[in-house]
Order: sequence, then structure tokens, then C-alpha cells
Amino acid sequence: MTDKHLSTQFDAELSGISTRVLEMGGLVESQVAQAIEALGTFSGEIASHVLKQEELVNTMEVEIDRDLSTIIARRQPTARDLRLLIAVSKTIANLERVGDEAARIARTVQRLINTGVSSRLRLPMADLSYEAELATASLRKALDAFARLDVDRALEVLKQDDQIDKEFDGLMRKLITYMMEDPRTISSSIDLVFVAKAIERVGDHAKNLAEVIIYVVKGTDVRHNTPDAVENMVR
Amino acid sequence: MTDKHLSTQFDAELSGISTRVLEMGGLVESQVAQAIEALGTFSGEIASHVLKQEELVNTMEVEIDRDLSTIIARRQPTARDLRLLIAVSKTIANLERVGDEAARIARTVQRLINTGVSSRLRLPMADLSYEAELATASLRKALDAFARLDVDRALEVLKQDDQIDKEFDGLMRKLITYMMEDPRTISSSIDLVFVAKAIERVGDHAKNLAEVIIYVVKGTDVRHNTPDAVENMVR
Repeated sequence: MTDKHLSTQFDAELSGISTRVLEMGGLVESQVAQAIEALGTFSGEIASHVLKQEELVNTMEVEIDRDLSTIIARRQPTARDLRLLIAVSKTIANLERVGDEAARIARTVQRLINTGVSSRLRLPMADLSYEAELATASLRKALDAFARLDVDRALEVLKQDDQIDKEFDGLMRKLITYMMEDPRTISSSIDLVFVAKAIERVGDHAKNLAEVIIYVVKGTDVRHNTPDAVENMVR
Repeated sequence: MTDKHLSTQFDAELSGISTRVLEMGGLVESQVAQAIEALGTFSGEIASHVLKQEELVNTMEVEIDRDLSTIIARRQPTARDLRLLIAVSKTIANLERVGDEAARIARTVQRLINTGVSSRLRLPMADLSYEAELATASLRKALDAFARLDVDRALEVLKQDDQIDKEFDGLMRKLITYMMEDPRTISSSIDLVFVAKAIERVGDHAKNLAEVIIYVVKGTDVRHNTPDAVENMVR
């Protein structure tokens, strides 16, 4: 068996893993969208569906991680391939956390339904949906950057995070106003505060993904830097 | 150079990294304690100190990660050693996130001081301190389990997480009561909600550490299981 042959096998294994990562990414992205839909329609059914998917996402993470370890142990990859494999492990850890955020939102929906507050709760649904759209769009872009190992797209993701944070701050102000106007809704509004926070964190996870991609392609660890500084580091 | 010699060098490198991980762990543990102290005394000085330390923690993470990659690339470690090296990488990622939570609390303290609300804010300080003590004790135990690769201690950490979550729920109820009694404090009380959440997450990170340690020693991925199920899996 030649080195060429080995390397082709390795590439095939890697490409198989890559496909599964993208599948996992698509799944958690849809989980977030569904969790927000469950909130907007107070649908316990959709909320349960999101929670069932969480188990699938968890299983995917554990299985991909196991296969990565097997590949590393068997193939003794080069430094660059190893960087890629470790990056994949970090990527799925982030995707799993996106799934967690979606599950958190779904559990909140269930609680709001169970406590019967859903009817008199003022939902800033337009804002929540918009924040969620920004966050899932960032996630999609990060996954796309992962699929193509595209640093420019990864940089775009880093730049968008600021906008999600601003949206979150605006939502916070709105929720605080609602609570002050009707203190009886404080308890359930706090739940919405955490929903807004969960969405903001989806954006953070997308940002982490983008940083991992830049690390794979450029070999530079760009974490803990502003987007502008990152751009200077990689250009 | 014999294999024995190589292996001894590898052990020495690993032990050096291990020492730095424990140092990083001690640092973030003290950051959390200081952030809570800054809140209790409304000390902008201590809050700034916590934020300065965050940079140090970030640098430690990046440097240890870089050294791990170098070791893996140079030593072609066995499957078991590789598992350990990947575990160290996951450990420092968790520790860095603990540092983030401490920084988040410190920034909240700065905001509370700057908006001048500190004087009329009702702080459930005893509860916040207690929650923080539970969380940092879990973190300390997890680091201890890491130092000794001690599965029993790691299991204890998993079991304690429930108590931290209960403490968080109690704090939430108390904060909601405060807000209802004086709606003018809603905005600043929401800040305290996030402080309580940040502490709860420190407990989550300790739990993640414990799961990583079990994975290294037993080779079993125990994430996404209840503490009782984990105990059955490893015994």
C-alpha cells in the first residue's frame, strides 16, 4: 500500500466526517428555528420535537468524536491534518452547545405553557425572531465557511456578532419596560430574558466556529481579538 | 536515543503542561471569588483587577494549546496519550470559560457602580456568595481530580451540580420577589440574574471538566448522562 493510497483513504474518511458535521450543523440550525417557532405559537408539540432532536445531536457529537480519535490513532496524521481533526472536534462541541441553547428555549416554552401564563404574556416576538434569524444566519455562514475552508466568510461571521449583541441589548431594554409596566409578568419575562440570551449565545458559538476555521487555514489562533485585529492578523 | 528516553521526555513535557493547567485553574477560581467580592463591596478596583487577569487567562489558554499541538506533532503519541492531550485541550477551554464568567460578573459590577444604582440595590449577597462557594468548590474538586486522574472525585463533582442548580433556582425566586416589591430596581436586578447565571455556569464548567477526566481514565464518553447513569457506566 503506497503513501498515496493511505492519504486518499484519509481524505475519504475526512470528507465523510465533514459531511456528518455539516448534517449536524443543519440539524441544530433547524432546532433553533423550531424552538423560536414553538415560542411564537406556544406549541408544546414543536417544543417536544426540539427536545427529542437534542438526543440525536448529542449522539452525533459522541460518535463523530469517537471516529476522530480512531482516525488520529490509526493514521498518525501530519501536523496540518491533525490541526484539522482537532478543529472538527471543537466544531462539533460548539454545534452541540447550539443544540443545548435550542433545548433550553424549548424547555422554557413548555414551562410557560404549563404555568398557564402564555395568554397574558407580552411577547416581543418580532424582535426575538429577528435576533434568531441573525444568529442562525451567522451559524449557516460559519458552516459554509467550514465546508469551503473559506477565511473571508469566517471573517464576515466575526464581524456580524456585534450586530447580534446590539439586538440582544435592545430586546433586554424592551423586556425591562414590559416588566416595569406590568410587574405581574416579571417571572415569565425573566424566562424571555434567558431566551434572548440563548439566541445571543448561538451567535457566540457561530463566532467560535469561525475562529476555529481561521485557525485551520491560517494556523493562527485568533481568539480573544477584535474582528479588525483578526483581519490584520490573517491578511 | 531509546524509546524509554523518548517516553520519559514525553512524561516530563506532559507533567509541565499539567502544572500550568492547575495554575490556570487556580487563577480562574480566584477570579470568580474576587468577582463576587467586588460585587459584595461594590469595588471597582477589584473588578478591574479581575478583568486584567482575564487577559492573562486567555494568553495561558492560547499558549498551552500551542504547546499541545507541538507535542502531538512531534511525539506521535499513543492512542491513550493522545486522549490525555485532547483532554487537556478541552480542560483549558473550560477553564477559559470560567474566566469569562468571572469577567462577566466584574463588568456587571462596573456597570452597577457607573449607573449609581449600587446604593439602593438590594443584594442577596449571602445567597450569591453561597452559590459561588459551591461552584468554586466543585471547580477545585474537578482540578484535584484532574491532578490525580481520580474518577471518584470526578463523580462527586457530577453529583454536586444538582445542588448548584437548586441554589440558582432559589436565588431566581428571591430576585423576582425583590423586583416585584420595587419595580424601579428591575433593570439592575436583571444584572444580578445574569450574575447568578454566570455562577451556575461555573458549576457547569466544573462538571464538563469532571466528564473529561472520566473519559481520559476510563475511555468512556459519559456526557449527556445523569450522574447515577455515569456511576453505573464506570463502576
